[in-house]
Amino acid sequence: MGLSQLKAQIARDYGTPAMVIDLNVVENNIARVQAMCDAVGVANRPHIKTHKSPIIAKMQIEAGAKGITCQKIGEAEVMADAGIDDIFISYNLLGEQKIGRLGQLLKRVKMRVACDNQTVLDGLPEAGIIAGRPLEVMVECDTGRKRAGVETPQEAIDLAKQIAANKHLSFAGLMMYPPESKMTETEDFIATVRAGLREAGIEINEVSSGGTPNLVNLGKIKAATEHRAGTCIFNDRMMMRNGHASLADCALNVYATVVSRAGAERGILDSGSKTLTADTGGGLDGFGLILEHPQARIAQFAEEHGFLDLSACNDRPVVGDVVRIIPNHVCVVVNMVDRLVVVRGHELIGDWPVAARGRIV
Amino acid sequence: MGLSQLKAQIARDYGTPAMVIDLNVVENNIARVQAMCDAVGVANRPHIKTHKSPIIAKMQIEAGAKGITCQKIGEAEVMADAGIDDIFISYNLLGEQKIGRLGQLLKRVKMRVACDNQTVLDGLPEAGIIAGRPLEVMVECDTGRKRAGVETPQEAIDLAKQIAANKHLSFAGLMMYPPESKMTETEDFIATVRAGLREAGIEINEVSSGGTPNLVNLGKIKAATEHRAGTCIFNDRMMMRNGHASLADCALNVYATVVSRAGAERGILDSGSKTLTADTGGGLDGFGLILEHPQARIAQFAEEHGFLDLSACNDRPVVGDVVRIIPNHVCVVVNMVDRLVVVRGHELIGDWPVAARGRIV
Repeated sequence: MGLSQLKAQIARDYGTPAMVIDLNVVENNIARVQAMCDAVGVANRPHIKTHKSPIIAKMQIEAGAKGITCQKIGEAEVMADAGIDDIFISYNLLGEQKIGRLGQLLKRVKMRVACDNQTVLDGLPEAGIIAGRPLEVMVECDTGRKRAGVETPQEAIDLAKQIAANKHLSFAGLMMYPPESKMTETEDFIATVRAGLREAGIEINEVSSGGTPNLVNLGKIKAATEHRAGTCIFNDRMMMRNGHASLADCALNVYATVVSRAGAERGILDSGSKTLTADTGGGLDGFGLILEHPQARIAQFAEEHGFLDLSACNDRPVVGDVVRIIPNHVCVVVNMVDRLVVVRGHELIGDWPVAARGRIV
Repeated sequence: MGLSQLKAQIARDYGTPAMVIDLNVVENNIARVQAMCDAVGVANRPHIKTHKSPIIAKMQIEAGAKGITCQKIGEAEVMADAGIDDIFISYNLLGEQKIGRLGQLLKRVKMRVACDNQTVLDGLPEAGIIAGRPLEVMVECDTGRKRAGVETPQEAIDLAKQIAANKHLSFAGLMMYPPESKMTETEDFIATVRAGLREAGIEINEVSSGGTPNLVNLGKIKAATEHRAGTCIFNDRMMMRNGHASLADCALNVYATVVSRAGAERGILDSGSKTLTADTGGGLDGFGLILEHPQARIAQFAEEHGFLDLSACNDRPVVGDVVRIIPNHVCVVVNMVDRLVVVRGHELIGDWPVAARGRIV
């Protein structure tokens, strides 16, 4: 089957917009990242935030990943329900509702969480009490991103000591999401914490680093024992712009239809901000790359309208054309839909649920 | 019950982030918009894109709305399944899959669609054939927004004549979403089309205008017979900035928890771009207004992290605080979740499904 037939089939069976992943590319991406981790002896713990699919998470584990990373308790519940049994939630969890759910999860699967402050730490032992076994906790360290994470080694030492001393918790090591340019600073931070904890008789067994942009830095943080990367499963326009992926590494296309061509130099796609999202991917021009018309700009959005600026295009689409779009930021785009259409090359395979979509709690 | 108790109850029963609507405000908004339409004798056909809830659509109809507006066939199906029987899809629908679904809908409820080009028009009769009765079609006219809609009266005349001549279609009039500053131009456009069609013996019975920003312009387009407004059901920071709503008119708050305060002048909310979305609301500073800390800026997002810049705040939140956020653009925010938490003042009522969330096809 050719591409035009595939487009017609997807439009007929699913309608557009449709989010379409190519299994050939997904499998290549899984194998490449696993090989990169294997080459430096770092465990692979992919972040499921990008695909939100237990099917794909299991493909990653089958290829050698030691477990998965989630950002929210609701994501972890979906993955545990699907049979995944080694889950790290790289996030500060707090509040009776979430700690209760965390305790229930810990009863049935290996769970680990992150912590960067006293309030969160004070709440975590309850999960261990509920589960009847200690909860593994990593101290989140900020080495320059200014997101979550303690800013100083001393704070990390203080939290780690408390974790190690609590019978309902188990100190699992350090986690960070270092900026790409701060490898040395991150090593120094870890070394200082390690020295401080060693004085107290506490070892750091694991150090978890992360990020698709940091795959090129694998091995540079000598202390790192595992890596969490998410976007690399599908890649996107942002990863291409930053040099972390080629077009051939982009597994997801949004199939969209041109629904209006009221002006010579403009058109409307049936995909707006409720499909492609307003994410600029950190300052990209326009809201996606149209493979059939790379000179076209998705210049502006209404919720269900993508405004096409065709002024730079010689070959302009007509109403009814189905086009394929590489989104700016694939992680937020997948999160807009309940299913992904699955193809292999130009062959339609079926569709898979985005089972953890919208699990923001 | 006070606000702090309500916050604690929502955090305990639902967890954060939670999207919370206040029924007192929703009811006021419904009554105000209906009264504005009644005052000028224009029918109210609210756009459900904002709430995506059949429960709220029925409240609007109960208050006097003649029917509803949808943007997608999937939204219309959800509303029809819930018993709503007068639906306008203000969008160019095309392709075998959507026309088939449209025909099925037309079998059971009063349906109307928009059309701005020949390709879409050529596909629509099939829906009438499937249903066994004519499909009502409005010609979409662009009077300055440069979205969908024919740009010239002559194109509208040509399409309207074809619609009127097709036994499977019924010409229902004109629709537009005029820019707020183009009332006179819109009137002139309509008058020219009316004159041209009258020569052919065709009357324009209905003219549908729209937009919450155009509620202040109700009555200025003399030819308008109905108005489609969506955002006014909840309102948001964008509507406040543009003078279309006050804080008291904002029905939806995102309840979020501060989960990290690693630096003195910064913090992290448990709501990122997968909750509040990257929508800037047309150039607003930051990604939402925090009611408890209006000087705080939601400066940046990761998918599940909202980066707080607290440098301008004297009173800074601590980890564990639950805050309420007015989002930049409420329509895209509601679309991120499967349910809305419903309160009346400080009393928790329950939760309602966002039944048409993510219905982008």
